[in-house]
Amino acid sequence: MFAAFLPKEFNFFDLFEKQVGFAGDAARYFKELVTKGAIDENSLSKMHDIEHQSDDVSHEIIDRLNKTFITPFDREDIHSLTKELDDIIDMLYTIVSRMKVYKISGANKQLIDFAVVIEQSVASVAAAVKAMRHMKHSKTITDACVEVNRLENVGDTMRDKALEQLFENEKDPIVVIKWKEIFQYSETVLDICEDVVHVIESIFVKQA
Amino acid sequence: MFAAFLPKEFNFFDLFEKQVGFAGDAARYFKELVTKGAIDENSLSKMHDIEHQSDDVSHEIIDRLNKTFITPFDREDIHSLTKELDDIIDMLYTIVSRMKVYKISGANKQLIDFAVVIEQSVASVAAAVKAMRHMKHSKTITDACVEVNRLENVGDTMRDKALEQLFENEKDPIVVIKWKEIFQYSETVLDICEDVVHVIESIFVKQA
Amino acid sequence: MFAAFLPKEFNFFDLFEKQVGFAGDAARYFKELVTKGAIDENSLSKMHDIEHQSDDVSHEIIDRLNKTFITPFDREDIHSLTKELDDIIDMLYTIVSRMKVYKISGANKQLIDFAVVIEQSVASVAAAVKAMRHMKHSKTITDACVEVNRLENVGDTMRDKALEQLFENEKDPIVVIKWKEIFQYSETVLDICEDVVHVIESIFVKQA
Repeated sequence: MFAAFLPKEFNFFDLFEKQVGFAGDAARYFKELVTKGAIDENSLSKMHDIEHQSDDVSHEIIDRLNKTFITPFDREDIHSLTKELDDIIDMLYTIVSRMKVYKISGANKQLIDFAVVIEQSVASVAAAVKAMRHMKHSKTITDACVEVNRLENVGDTMRDKALEQLFENEKDPIVVIKWKEIFQYSETVLDICEDVVHVIESIFVKQA
Repeated sequence: MFAAFLPKEFNFFDLFEKQVGFAGDAARYFKELVTKGAIDENSLSKMHDIEHQSDDVSHEIIDRLNKTFITPFDREDIHSLTKELDDIIDMLYTIVSRMKVYKISGANKQLIDFAVVIEQSVASVAAAVKAMRHMKHSKTITDACVEVNRLENVGDTMRDKALEQLFENEKDPIVVIKWKEIFQYSETVLDICEDVVHVIESIFVKQA
Repeated sequence: MFAAFLPKEFNFFDLFEKQVGFAGDAARYFKELVTKGAIDENSLSKMHDIEHQSDDVSHEIIDRLNKTFITPFDREDIHSLTKELDDIIDMLYTIVSRMKVYKISGANKQLIDFAVVIEQSVASVAAAVKAMRHMKHSKTITDACVEVNRLENVGDTMRDKALEQLFENEKDPIVVIKWKEIFQYSETVLDICEDVVHVIESIFVKQA
């Protein structure tokens, strides 16, 4: 009810929603790119734009943090949350960039499966971020955390199967090196999503 | 002496001891598996059970944290400690799972050496966790930390020697890729043990 | 103005400056070694000495932390800062040690470029650490953070170009495995420098 006197508090929620929106954009574009199976200079630059916009929001969050006396939760948690959200987008950019460096082309069924799961996990992360505004909605947060954890397990299994087939079928070691990294980085995106919801859980613990 | 009024406090120590007990189980089973040199569906599933039990304790710790007003130390440290203990078991599970994915079989002398050092390091971690209950026993904690640090250095040397021989003798690049990862992950277990005792040291610093 | 009554406070700044000085030594020696392009037992041992001296300062910092009631900033941040500074030196030692394990010899133009950027980044980290003593000098800290971030981006581009040429030109998969790791670790040094200035920024946020 003191909201009118503390307008700056609310900006954090707006900014986090904005940033998780960019994570959603990155996940959708990642799926589009790996489905098409071709990374050119243009697609890399578009992914870079999304990453840059997320960076800008991060800087705005830190900047406002410096200028705001009262914050809705711990300053350190605000730092962690914006960093982890940024890490999701960074990792997606890294994968796309590495695919270009490795001159990988052609749609890979397993990578597309990863992209689908990543898009789902980021959507659940977004739901958790949005529920932070009303910390009372703990069920939304808990459900999102359970789902992100579940998808991380799904990703583990997908990576293991992908690696198993890769080492079974691919005889060119250079190709093995490339795809091993792509699959492991894809699973890492799901690990970072889990880290984000852990930060949110930890914020929630302190508010409880 | 207020223990009777704060029964929930004590559960954290019980739960951490339970969880570090699972880390000990995982380390012992890991040594058994690599000594036998064969990972089948059964052994993977048994390792998975241990990981699952550790997960359950983690969730119980977080759950009690949500419901407990007074905790023996910082809520964030309780979070970190249970996460790091879980990471030890996760990493051991990852190694075993990767060995199965890579269809590695046969006992490897260097990996057995790693398993022995890992078992020792986890035993020292367990000693440090147990001493937390009586924070006054700082010598036990300090000794355990020194030992875990020492074993991490031993592990560094072991990994370097293992990699040197691997790159010197193994001509099949695919085999090099597989074992390089197994050796590096094995050393990572010792790094995580060091992270655990660093969390305990940091808790101790705050209590001092 | 209460400095006379709180002599211990100032030791932290002295110790952090000492430790970042060792990071500077490590970066300079790293550049020297990769320019010469030969890592022998002697050079490894000299790098190890620097790492050991940094470790000693770390332990002194933690030890004083245990004995000091009033600290210039959060105890946890003191922990993080000394750990991250140590990580810079550890990573440089790891690269040098890995080059010896891999029997890499001969100057590599791209690795020398990395060493130059690492030396610059560590110099900016040192400027930020030195400015901590006078937290009012926020411009020095901000400038150093901007520079360290910029150099991390430079490093990303360098790594991508180095990997691109490696995968394009090198036909021996074993050589690809070795250099891929060396280039990625070199970029990681710049990531750690960024982590250090993030800790300093976060300390600064709390003091603001």
